[in-house]
Amino acid sequence: MVETIQWTPNGVVMIDQTKLPRETVYVTCRTYQEVAHAIVTMIIRGAPAIGVAAAMGVALGVRAGNDIDTVCKTLAATRPTAVNLFWAIDRMKKLYHSLKGATAGAVADRLEAEAKLIKEEDIEINRAMGRHGAPLVPDGKTVLTHCNAGALATAGYGTALGVIRAAIEAGKKIDVFADETRPFLQGARLTAWELQQDGIATTLITDNMAGYFLRSGRIGCVIVGADRIAANGDVANKVGTYSVAVLAKENGVPFYVAAPISTLDLTLTSGDQIPIEQRAATEVTEVFGVPVAPENIAVQNPAFDVTPNRYVTAIITERGVAKAPFEHSLRTLAGKD
Amino acid sequence: MVETIQWTPNGVVMIDQTKLPRETVYVTCRTYQEVAHAIVTMIIRGAPAIGVAAAMGVALGVRAGNDIDTVCKTLAATRPTAVNLFWAIDRMKKLYHSLKGATAGAVADRLEAEAKLIKEEDIEINRAMGRHGAPLVPDGKTVLTHCNAGALATAGYGTALGVIRAAIEAGKKIDVFADETRPFLQGARLTAWELQQDGIATTLITDNMAGYFLRSGRIGCVIVGADRIAANGDVANKVGTYSVAVLAKENGVPFYVAAPISTLDLTLTSGDQIPIEQRAATEVTEVFGVPVAPENIAVQNPAFDVTPNRYVTAIITERGVAKAPFEHSLRTLAGKD
Repeated sequence: MVETIQWTPNGVVMIDQTKLPRETVYVTCRTYQEVAHAIVTMIIRGAPAIGVAAAMGVALGVRAGNDIDTVCKTLAATRPTAVNLFWAIDRMKKLYHSLKGATAGAVADRLEAEAKLIKEEDIEINRAMGRHGAPLVPDGKTVLTHCNAGALATAGYGTALGVIRAAIEAGKKIDVFADETRPFLQGARLTAWELQQDGIATTLITDNMAGYFLRSGRIGCVIVGADRIAANGDVANKVGTYSVAVLAKENGVPFYVAAPISTLDLTLTSGDQIPIEQRAATEVTEVFGVPVAPENIAVQNPAFDVTPNRYVTAIITERGVAKAPFEHSLRTLAGKD
Repeated sequence: MVETIQWTPNGVVMIDQTKLPRETVYVTCRTYQEVAHAIVTMIIRGAPAIGVAAAMGVALGVRAGNDIDTVCKTLAATRPTAVNLFWAIDRMKKLYHSLKGATAGAVADRLEAEAKLIKEEDIEINRAMGRHGAPLVPDGKTVLTHCNAGALATAGYGTALGVIRAAIEAGKKIDVFADETRPFLQGARLTAWELQQDGIATTLITDNMAGYFLRSGRIGCVIVGADRIAANGDVANKVGTYSVAVLAKENGVPFYVAAPISTLDLTLTSGDQIPIEQRAATEVTEVFGVPVAPENIAVQNPAFDVTPNRYVTAIITERGVAKAPFEHSLRTLAGKD
């Protein structure tokens, strides 16, 4: 299994997800600014993975003697939608402030240990999500997924793909349809690649074919990840998730979201309050640097969309499965009730 | 305005739609086999345009002394979904058989004139469709379209884009959102390009963003073309059309199909009987020859899907606008009642 992100004596090492699957290149971030740059440019992406990256970035930044607030502000400004980023930064910042009076070396060691712990916890969380989610996956059918909510989007094992892996480990006979997920092609480049590495039968389709196959009857369920989930169960995830959810409901196919508790943002009453990142036009007009559209064409490139809770069959977390009414079930799982 | 297809003394000249917008290259087909090859490889595409191409192919083939049945069979075997292809071939074949006793030269001249007539009629048909469709387009809003149902998909002016052009000519203040339309990128490469040439404000989005914008309230209506329409109003069109139609209905946005009467196939009671072409995996795994997926990944590539009639607000033809119940309205427009 590929290592998405690792703490090493030389710095934070990440597999460069902009280059997969054509090249397997590792990038070493030696400063917190380099970590921030890697998040902005999507060398690392996926809500849980950028949470781990940010935590490691804080540890690097403090070790190098930088001001904690500057470090945290820089890392928090990288991407607006995934809440795991802010969750991880907050956790590191709280720990830092709890260490008042300790030597600089002791603080740095403790932050490094915490960042590594966040990474290890993430893998455990994904395995727990897999255990809770596997029973929901219909046997003998196809699972449709969108974007990459796999090992590459996390510290390992994956959220949505973790549930798929757990279902297969439990003996279910399933295969996977992966939406290619334009414009960044996380499905074609990352999901297809990591499932192929695992020997899981995977078929690649373009995003606009999802409806065709949902209508065909072969899809047993949809499983996707999430970047932020509001208190009412509205889900922000990679753009196109909303479309898949509507098409799943229209065809009576269950639509599952797999996400750690750290993806919940109970401060937001609905998904309409979730900030949606707009990214560069060139992501749409070029593919690996090759132009696919006329010059000077206007482009919109929202990186995420919000799926209203009425399309969500259940949300799979490491603490169990939440169903509607989500206001109640999510608060209970989050330990707020 | 670009000429999609022209009869010239050297043969049938087509703009190569596989190379747009990066290169404006014209291909000359000197034999009916070259016309068939151009249809198979999508040098020319779009239901009305391949009807015109097939008619010109028949004229070329008969002029060169080939057997009419062989010529028609070859041209009919190029692509299975668009019915305009078979309609045009049938029309040419019937004319041929009506000319028994005429000299070979006279037959060839008459077939050539008929093919040119089919082309000229197509432009007139599109303008009539525009006149019928323009009043349906909400003023001051955005029209969403999928694939390319424009001048490039027809002999000129376009079906769906013809309605947009007519609405603008009628003074409506509208702009266009174009789905890029993977895998062949007809939206990014062709629709964006031809609307840009006309100075019509156009924004390019990926297919999976259509739901986001349909939900946003800015889309006033969806207009698409069609490759075949069954007697009950089920519409086969470029893959992804079904998804857009479901998302439009879910958000209360009218969904219009613009297609000539020659796109109707009243021999089919429902869209489930329409054959759906499966195309090569490389269309999905490569973009302009650049690989975007891991080697040896399984691919599905249905080129079309079927939108059930319940999602279709109206079908705009050159003879008027058909609404539900389509069994009745389409038969009436086709002159079968």
